[in-house]
Amino acid sequence: MTPAEVKALPVRELPRLARDVRARILDVVGANGGHLASSLGAVELAIGLVRVFEPARDRIVWDVGHQAYAWKILTGRDGAFDTLRRLGGLSGFPNPEESPCDAFVSGHAGAALAAAQGMAAARDLKGGDAHVVAVVGEASLANGMALESLCALRSFKRLTLVLNDNAPAPAFGNAFFGALGLAYRGPVDGHDVSAVEKALEQARLCDGPVVLHVRTVKGRGYAPAEADPTAWHGVPPHAGNGVADAGRTWSGEFGRMLVDLGRKDPRVCAVTAAMPHGTGLVPFAQAFPDRFFDVGICEERAVTFAAGLAKAGMRPVVAIYSTFLQRAFDQIMHDVCILNLPVVFAVDRAGCVGADGRTHHGMFDIPMLRCLPNMSVLQPRDAASLGRMLAAAFAQGGPVAIRWPRGAPPPDGPEGPFAWGTAEQLSAPKAPVQLWALGDQVPKARAAAEILAGKGLAAGVVDARFVKPHDAALLACQRAAGMFIASLENGSVAGGFGEAIGADARFGWPDAFVGHGSAEELERAIGFTAQDVAQGVVAALGKAGG
Amino acid sequence: MTPAEVKALPVRELPRLARDVRARILDVVGANGGHLASSLGAVELAIGLVRVFEPARDRIVWDVGHQAYAWKILTGRDGAFDTLRRLGGLSGFPNPEESPCDAFVSGHAGAALAAAQGMAAARDLKGGDAHVVAVVGEASLANGMALESLCALRSFKRLTLVLNDNAPAPAFGNAFFGALGLAYRGPVDGHDVSAVEKALEQARLCDGPVVLHVRTVKGRGYAPAEADPTAWHGVPPHAGNGVADAGRTWSGEFGRMLVDLGRKDPRVCAVTAAMPHGTGLVPFAQAFPDRFFDVGICEERAVTFAAGLAKAGMRPVVAIYSTFLQRAFDQIMHDVCILNLPVVFAVDRAGCVGADGRTHHGMFDIPMLRCLPNMSVLQPRDAASLGRMLAAAFAQGGPVAIRWPRGAPPPDGPEGPFAWGTAEQLSAPKAPVQLWALGDQVPKARAAAEILAGKGLAAGVVDARFVKPHDAALLACQRAAGMFIASLENGSVAGGFGEAIGADARFGWPDAFVGHGSAEELERAIGFTAQDVAQGVVAALGKAGG
Repeated sequence: MTPAEVKALPVRELPRLARDVRARILDVVGANGGHLASSLGAVELAIGLVRVFEPARDRIVWDVGHQAYAWKILTGRDGAFDTLRRLGGLSGFPNPEESPCDAFVSGHAGAALAAAQGMAAARDLKGGDAHVVAVVGEASLANGMALESLCALRSFKRLTLVLNDNAPAPAFGNAFFGALGLAYRGPVDGHDVSAVEKALEQARLCDGPVVLHVRTVKGRGYAPAEADPTAWHGVPPHAGNGVADAGRTWSGEFGRMLVDLGRKDPRVCAVTAAMPHGTGLVPFAQAFPDRFFDVGICEERAVTFAAGLAKAGMRPVVAIYSTFLQRAFDQIMHDVCILNLPVVFAVDRAGCVGADGRTHHGMFDIPMLRCLPNMSVLQPRDAASLGRMLAAAFAQGGPVAIRWPRGAPPPDGPEGPFAWGTAEQLSAPKAPVQLWALGDQVPKARAAAEILAGKGLAAGVVDARFVKPHDAALLACQRAAGMFIASLENGSVAGGFGEAIGADARFGWPDAFVGHGSAEELERAIGFTAQDVAQGVVAALGKAGG
Repeated sequence: MTPAEVKALPVRELPRLARDVRARILDVVGANGGHLASSLGAVELAIGLVRVFEPARDRIVWDVGHQAYAWKILTGRDGAFDTLRRLGGLSGFPNPEESPCDAFVSGHAGAALAAAQGMAAARDLKGGDAHVVAVVGEASLANGMALESLCALRSFKRLTLVLNDNAPAPAFGNAFFGALGLAYRGPVDGHDVSAVEKALEQARLCDGPVVLHVRTVKGRGYAPAEADPTAWHGVPPHAGNGVADAGRTWSGEFGRMLVDLGRKDPRVCAVTAAMPHGTGLVPFAQAFPDRFFDVGICEERAVTFAAGLAKAGMRPVVAIYSTFLQRAFDQIMHDVCILNLPVVFAVDRAGCVGADGRTHHGMFDIPMLRCLPNMSVLQPRDAASLGRMLAAAFAQGGPVAIRWPRGAPPPDGPEGPFAWGTAEQLSAPKAPVQLWALGDQVPKARAAAEILAGKGLAAGVVDARFVKPHDAALLACQRAAGMFIASLENGSVAGGFGEAIGADARFGWPDAFVGHGSAEELERAIGFTAQDVAQGVVAALGKAGG
């Protein structure tokens, strides 16, 4: 549907529209996977926003855009909605390059209000009467940048903050907003579409800033998701009538190991920024509730809080997605690394994450972390290796980051002796080509070595294990023997591991934002398959005259 | 003095102690330079804290530690205070490696409360009765991480937040803290030492968290600083009776140029995170108050606010110190780079900053920025070059970071044609050694080339100009000619420019935190003088068999 069609509907037909939109979301998310509970909760809100504002002219900024599926359907993208999160299809998050109705990109929580304020300031400088709306979830509003922006909100004009509140016990109420000098309206029943429309219309007519409190229910209209919105937050494709058991995952293996470590050492604590499920921490939280800290969507605070724990004698692990760890770069440097504090960073979703796309890929943790003094950076190739790395990290006594990708680890294989800062030569130590692979890239390196062997070129495979400190001794040996070194890493080549070891050919993700699709599709699209690696090595050797 | 001596003094002698401490601060800061106004404002607070708590056992966490000079003097470091900010001497910020009374490192604002909460949580897990105190300035409390922590404060025990408030119009009052479920006490006159002591004693006896509001005057006891605390915030050595005119600086040149650009283009805006003076933005703020935005100590919001401005058609420049830009790494990636928005980052204090030391050196902006798709990174060698780069950056239409160091640019020299992504060969293009220098390292490269010439080794000098996109064509030419490439950069070698161009020898700052002292002293200590570069090139050539 187009906004004009949504606007033209009589009010009495809006509940039916909401039902249709929900059915469409359920249908497509059922097939493609996606963010279900939040999107189902924001259907009437999206209808109201489309009807009250001019989506392509006013600026509606969705915070954590995974609540915005209804918005996409109602702003001309119903036809393309089947392609959601697929290669070349609609993004799972608002994207101005996809539609003029998406005012801003929003995959990371807490940004909408700051961006909306910039847009409102620009409007007032240039002249214009566009209204600016930030739609922010209760949990996102507790994020630092959102709070910074909230404290400054009173000085902006024609800016509405829609607080999409689905918390059982809201953290922020009338008194809080009043203390910040803000006009507060609500709460409005966020599933009463005409009440929502009326409240938005009143906000639109205000000259000053308005906080409009809308109460919604996550998963609304789909009983299983209403009953357990956390389980139905992100849904894999074809989940059917229950959220499919994701099976063995890196996160799950990590979580299980952390429970063991917590049992052995009472100093071990776990810190998460609102992602206990995604990072595998639920078993730890259940086993050691006193030593489990969920700080909410406060990545900065998560890291500095962990630094405080460590300074006072505990051994915290901060489990966080690579892309969200970016939020805490300064805290890692200033609050952890300067004092060389023993904080372990469990960097989940490192590398390509597939369907969530460019806002969520974990491409930059290696460049971000390896420049920091005192920091070590590791990546295991299987779960057994992860176990050894975790134990070594806790024994290390300084900051250590261990990264792993989304998805499942391969079956455990044998591993040689593990010592700090050493790589492991997995095959063909004398071969003229050596493929240094990081973690999940080991199988690809093995496959590339086989392809190279088929071309008559012998290639050894090295499991790098350490980004930092890397195995300089093995590298120097291979250099001295005149070997050709290639690197494989699930992360940005610019600033990455391959640069750190000065690899002759470097394989990873390019200096461009990588879109959405399956990881396999994206690897093919970008030229990062085993076949591509083998061809790339041959081409580089040819150029080098090897 | 030791804490025991401070505790033993009768109350009637405390005003005299405060006077003595102020005289000592004025004396040493007068000689060594340092942070004057904030430190003078917190003298009675430091006396009260030393008397009420056990400095080496309780945990007193100073936020933005430049208010903590009195604390240093009163906790056993009066004797060493003459060495403040000097090579090998006392740090200008709290430092647990310097004294057990410094509970945490604190050079960046807003971190204290999160760290204090981690310490309080650790205490409750381990058992113990240490009290935890975070001393946070009014301006720091508006920082995102501080607000995140404030919203969570009600669940902590025996944790006192001392709000050191020197604002004419405080942003946060009783109602605000009350809305967050916090017990609020005050305001207390922060220069009435017995009132401060009494209020701290009451807070110490509380089991729950307390917000103790203390009103202080920046610069207290020194009339010029009381009258203009901003001018007397950071003071150079030997400022005498007035803050010495710092003369021609990079910041000042930038600020002047930005006014010109603002005059030519009404879309140009300037955004700062509480540093209009330090970043040279005061003339712009005076010329274009509507287009000047000081968002406070909210680095994240500064960047995303600028992204909103840019998305809505303005051309913002975010002027910020390198070390504080770390706070906004995620925002640069997510809110600016993904949409390729035209935001210019004026990265001040890039590289070694001298006396402020390890919390303030700008060592990591190159690794942080050059891994980001769509981002360009430049560094000028003189003010004229900065002018060309700024103009080119605004013409570019995507995110561009231009970095420069603390201090003064050299006199302008002639510059060849400037094109995007090109370096400039300054001398000896046919020489077998080529020194690629970034910005302020050009004079050092020239000096190193002269030293090498004295050793009979011809070396050319290249002004790299661009970290990204670097001049791949010139580099390939030199590579093809078999030249030896060395890089010089004022920043971390790990992840830095030298790695990006694959330099054969890389000169910059090491993979270790660099302390305080003059920039020249630190360069000598670390081995990063022209002499060191020349020797390093000779050694590397020897090893390479060149």
